[in-house]
Amino acid sequence: MDHPSKVVSPRIITLLTDFGTEDYFVGAMKGVILTRSPAAVIVDITHAIPPQDVRTGTFMLSTVYDSFPAGSIHLAVVDPGVGSNRRPILIEAAGHLFVGPDNGLFSMILDRVPDGTVRHVTNTDYFLPNPSSTFHGRDIFAPVAAALAQGVRPEELGPIIQDPVRFGFAECESLMGGSMAGRIIHIDHFGNCVTNFARDQLQPLLTARSFCLRVKEYEVHQLSRTYSEATAGEPFVIIGSAGFLEISIRCSSAARELKITVGDPVNLVVTES
Amino acid sequence: MDHPSKVVSPRIITLLTDFGTEDYFVGAMKGVILTRSPAAVIVDITHAIPPQDVRTGTFMLSTVYDSFPAGSIHLAVVDPGVGSNRRPILIEAAGHLFVGPDNGLFSMILDRVPDGTVRHVTNTDYFLPNPSSTFHGRDIFAPVAAALAQGVRPEELGPIIQDPVRFGFAECESLMGGSMAGRIIHIDHFGNCVTNFARDQLQPLLTARSFCLRVKEYEVHQLSRTYSEATAGEPFVIIGSAGFLEISIRCSSAARELKITVGDPVNLVVTES
Amino acid sequence: MDHPSKVVSPRIITLLTDFGTEDYFVGAMKGVILTRSPAAVIVDITHAIPPQDVRTGTFMLSTVYDSFPAGSIHLAVVDPGVGSNRRPILIEAAGHLFVGPDNGLFSMILDRVPDGTVRHVTNTDYFLPNPSSTFHGRDIFAPVAAALAQGVRPEELGPIIQDPVRFGFAECESLMGGSMAGRIIHIDHFGNCVTNFARDQLQPLLTARSFCLRVKEYEVHQLSRTYSEATAGEPFVIIGSAGFLEISIRCSSAARELKITVGDPVNLVVTES
Repeated sequence: MDHPSKVVSPRIITLLTDFGTEDYFVGAMKGVILTRSPAAVIVDITHAIPPQDVRTGTFMLSTVYDSFPAGSIHLAVVDPGVGSNRRPILIEAAGHLFVGPDNGLFSMILDRVPDGTVRHVTNTDYFLPNPSSTFHGRDIFAPVAAALAQGVRPEELGPIIQDPVRFGFAECESLMGGSMAGRIIHIDHFGNCVTNFARDQLQPLLTARSFCLRVKEYEVHQLSRTYSEATAGEPFVIIGSAGFLEISIRCSSAARELKITVGDPVNLVVTES
Repeated sequence: MDHPSKVVSPRIITLLTDFGTEDYFVGAMKGVILTRSPAAVIVDITHAIPPQDVRTGTFMLSTVYDSFPAGSIHLAVVDPGVGSNRRPILIEAAGHLFVGPDNGLFSMILDRVPDGTVRHVTNTDYFLPNPSSTFHGRDIFAPVAAALAQGVRPEELGPIIQDPVRFGFAECESLMGGSMAGRIIHIDHFGNCVTNFARDQLQPLLTARSFCLRVKEYEVHQLSRTYSEATAGEPFVIIGSAGFLEISIRCSSAARELKITVGDPVNLVVTES
Repeated sequence: MDHPSKVVSPRIITLLTDFGTEDYFVGAMKGVILTRSPAAVIVDITHAIPPQDVRTGTFMLSTVYDSFPAGSIHLAVVDPGVGSNRRPILIEAAGHLFVGPDNGLFSMILDRVPDGTVRHVTNTDYFLPNPSSTFHGRDIFAPVAAALAQGVRPEELGPIIQDPVRFGFAECESLMGGSMAGRIIHIDHFGNCVTNFARDQLQPLLTARSFCLRVKEYEVHQLSRTYSEATAGEPFVIIGSAGFLEISIRCSSAARELKITVGDPVNLVVTES
């Protein structure tokens, strides 16, 4: 052919919401995406973010986005301010694109990729006509993601902004004498209790003579490299696949056994070797 | 090329069932579809319709189908009569195709598209061989949907019928003095309580001087355009994205707070301005 | 064209895990697969296998794999021994490929396909670099499945082994006098209680003058061909779509009504005609 058309690989659009899966919400977003970008490859991350829980949303998104290839579009909607004047935003960071509400949902992405570019999506040309005031996931964010999948460039969607909403989430506090104060930021499906002690802060733990992690009325002294080599029935800590220290019990739920919930404070004291 | 083969776009097949996601049921349907129509794009609407709840099924299907492009095939299976003489049917309506049992599951589709064509699927050529009497989703409906995705024409599948099972679902009752009597038809993932007062019946509410919606022992007097501008902690009504009036509480669950369940009666009295 | 490139159909990769859908676990596996095999068609079987429940995993996998076309790759991860020296394995059976941990998860596949070939996956070239010790689903099994989808041949992944971990699961016991002793192996989404009495053992039941199935303090005497023709409110047995005898109650949950749980013993006595 003389004028070969540009072949664009199908684009991946991931979905992360607090919509649950028992309603039409997720299906409606997928229908809009496939109407406007028929070749898009849609992948569910999760729709079980607790309702309105922006913090769990940003944690989950930050743990998973870089398992996807560069060029992926991550559509995230945990949006208690839907219909208000909170801005729709688009972020370019580390070769990935993120679309969703400007309410802190992308805080941990911006922490990890400080040079990310954030845009206020002001161009309504790609929205559904007459968007509702209650379901921007379907009427605004899904069609914007589809437009990106079809090759619309970020700069066509709106101007760069410098003040996206952000909150500290994963930071823990280093105390005097080598102790660290943190909290439980997530409890996973298996009942593992994820703290905000990140791997790069944990070098002292790995080389310690001994340590004590306190949570509720419990003290944990055992660090394990795998779930299976831990002593059955006893709580231990492990650096989990998200890169944070977790409290676990082998083949059981630490959250249930120790009655731990999100937000519970944790304290780590390391005795150096 | 001299004889270009006809290029058919991959067809979308949506799935809506009461099968849950913890069993092999949904996977088996997808396997059958992909065996017979390898390029089909399968999209889950929901598998969390309450068991045997045909009414919730028809509501959910009617809210979502037109977010998908024309030509989509909607496979819906809520089928307490599986294996009995209830008919498998195929509906053509508004450019969409619907496949499933003839038990009222498509009532709201036929309400919305009165000129829809309904066929009794009698041609067993496209069924799996020796279909079971307990799982027509896998053995009959999935392969029929796959056949449609492969280009089999509806008229090849069976004759038009005039008497599909239908029930009234969303109709509310207009009372004297401008009052309306209805009921709760769905409670969504966020605890919003969807009534059967549809948007096109609600013009008087939008221009009213005041109104009173009664549900259980509560009276609601506040109408909001968005969730976020409502007063925290107080119930309000809002026209939701499905086009019905909903009872909500900002960042909380109205169903839980007000102990509302599906079927509860609601009454709306509007005082005109 | 003179040198047509070989066109390979996109490969199906099914996923079956105990990961739940509220975390990043499943999304991370899909991201890895699509990074390494962009055209793979990913299908979720279920992620709701009870945590660490290898037995339910093997039951579910064995009921569904052959609804998929030959050549499908089935990635199954229920893996309490992750990070230990339990082997990653790859099975070729009946034209399908299976990837996952060597802990009995494929027992029922090997029962059904006795001439299946099992390999120990020792070639780390296709793993993610520096695999974690807690998430082999993402770091080992997903990329191995993606490699297979890209055409890597099983023999490149590791040597044949003869001693995969297997356990008896579905076998029931034939007693003297025509009675059979078994147990409940699964309770499905509808509350149907699946026994380990398989269809090919049930010929005497189908031609019996009468029978008595005992479970807990109940006796069931009714066999139905469909759910809908059973007497409302009364327990009956039916040969379900997975090929096993199930205890059911029409439009209700037999498990809830009869307080049946997995593992409960069942006894079947047939009086021949």
